[in-house]
Amino acid sequence: MHSIYQYQEFISDYLQSQYETKEPRNLYEPIHYILDLGGKRMRPVLTLMSAEVFDADFKLALPAALAVEVFHNFSLVHDDIMDDAPLRRGNETVHEKWNVNTAILSGDAMLILAYQYFEQYNTEVFRDLAKLFSKTALEVCEGQQYDVDFETRDDVTIPEYLKMIEYKTAVLVAAAMKMGAIVAETSKENADLIYDFGLNLGLAFQLQDDYLDAFGNPETFGKQVGGDIIENKKTYLYLKAIEFSNDNQKEQLLHLFSIQPDDNSDKIESVKSIFNESGASDATKKAIQDYTLKAFDTLQNIGIDNEKKDILRSFGENLMGRKV
Amino acid sequence: MHSIYQYQEFISDYLQSQYETKEPRNLYEPIHYILDLGGKRMRPVLTLMSAEVFDADFKLALPAALAVEVFHNFSLVHDDIMDDAPLRRGNETVHEKWNVNTAILSGDAMLILAYQYFEQYNTEVFRDLAKLFSKTALEVCEGQQYDVDFETRDDVTIPEYLKMIEYKTAVLVAAAMKMGAIVAETSKENADLIYDFGLNLGLAFQLQDDYLDAFGNPETFGKQVGGDIIENKKTYLYLKAIEFSNDNQKEQLLHLFSIQPDDNSDKIESVKSIFNESGASDATKKAIQDYTLKAFDTLQNIGIDNEKKDILRSFGENLMGRKV
Repeated sequence: MHSIYQYQEFISDYLQSQYETKEPRNLYEPIHYILDLGGKRMRPVLTLMSAEVFDADFKLALPAALAVEVFHNFSLVHDDIMDDAPLRRGNETVHEKWNVNTAILSGDAMLILAYQYFEQYNTEVFRDLAKLFSKTALEVCEGQQYDVDFETRDDVTIPEYLKMIEYKTAVLVAAAMKMGAIVAETSKENADLIYDFGLNLGLAFQLQDDYLDAFGNPETFGKQVGGDIIENKKTYLYLKAIEFSNDNQKEQLLHLFSIQPDDNSDKIESVKSIFNESGASDATKKAIQDYTLKAFDTLQNIGIDNEKKDILRSFGENLMGRKV
Repeated sequence: MHSIYQYQEFISDYLQSQYETKEPRNLYEPIHYILDLGGKRMRPVLTLMSAEVFDADFKLALPAALAVEVFHNFSLVHDDIMDDAPLRRGNETVHEKWNVNTAILSGDAMLILAYQYFEQYNTEVFRDLAKLFSKTALEVCEGQQYDVDFETRDDVTIPEYLKMIEYKTAVLVAAAMKMGAIVAETSKENADLIYDFGLNLGLAFQLQDDYLDAFGNPETFGKQVGGDIIENKKTYLYLKAIEFSNDNQKEQLLHLFSIQPDDNSDKIESVKSIFNESGASDATKKAIQDYTLKAFDTLQNIGIDNEKKDILRSFGENLMGRKV
């Protein structure tokens, strides 16, 4: 097995080896640009790690890993248009640096390129990867649509919210790991179990992201702390707060989530107080822990050495150990 | 073998049978809307026809045919955003009826749904269809990018223009036919030949579209006659006119293609005169005929009965017999 840092290097090297001067340049340059912005490459790392856990050479999993990374970046390019986002990883978004039409078309090409990476596998593996990929990609689109729909709804339930983050975020983490299992040609049972591990870890991770968005350390959390509160986003924390709070707190919270003041510091502090006092913070921390433990429970049933299970558990603990 | 009208009915019925009330509705309603606008369904008709030419039941080809139709409509939805087009087949475009974000996301989902239709075939056929589809879809994106690039270039050559229309239009016609051959599990030679037949017919068809845009009968041509001239589009007619015309004509043409008058009738007549006098019209008609004959020549080498060849030839003649 290799370290995460090594996996990141393998992915980066493989990505660079794929670049050729393809025409038309206006289609391919934005693709190389967004892929070169980097990020932690967490999804493709999981594909390589999963392949090695099931006794395959990580090299065999590189094309599948890159398919996952290219798809993830496709979804960022199109989501950034929809969100009118100026920046991605501290750099201009594709639609800002070029224009919306380029971002649409280069994104489309990335979705197709992702499928093409599977062509390097044998026929059976190709089919299994492409089927899993299509199912996952469609769920990611559905998750994005739910997210858009929820913005204008005031009756979103906790189960609906969990389904949204499952589709928008967790299924791709799960699929990334299952792809490693498919490439390694392990049993269907093992492949399904590593999917469940990834799914629960993905849910825990996204709920932790919601939590840290409000309560994270501004020094270490990658995004603006309080961003969700500023944008009146109905996260798990908010929905739990509405569920738990008394009439007075609820009225206050609904009011705070209807305003957009110039200076948000008072709003953020007031909302965070309600999150804490209502018990929403504790409920969120408990949900994060529940999903993490569910992921670790799943590990027990996978047919691999305990040493391999420990590696996956360490990865999970490391991921979830991000400090408040 | 069946008639085109029958094939259109089969496709329409199969399409309707695929609809289910899928959530989120805001993602799937625009997809059903654009697919229900109809059109001639020429590409999926070709897939069914090709399957029957190679002795398969057309029913077997329905999923592949629908994949082609869904992909074609995906490209229309995204192209209409890029062109800021208000109407498609006489109805509001998706981004007008809903909004740009919905059109992006529903289009993305359509591209994925197209791949999923191939999952109904056996592993080998699935792989062949998905590979051909990815190659074709990427070429369509490249063709669209070339088309966008050409708008702001004044040095586009005839070979570049031909490559653009090949990628943007002809490869999908060719792939639609080859998919019928793949589904029928005919020889690789036959599959490649029917692809060439479709490619040349597709090129002839697109060049005829350029020609009819200027010289078609307003009563029967589906679009506004003179539309390309109004938009200063550098079509085959224009590029040939630039190549053939004398200094005086060329200067006049360059001027005419730099203005956007309120009333276009004088401009259209003047441009058409230059197209005729320079020999560009005749050259375009010759190119249409050359590609059509090349398609028919290819037919001779396909390993099928003469009766089947006659059916394909009749289809081609019918398609190219659209009246000026």
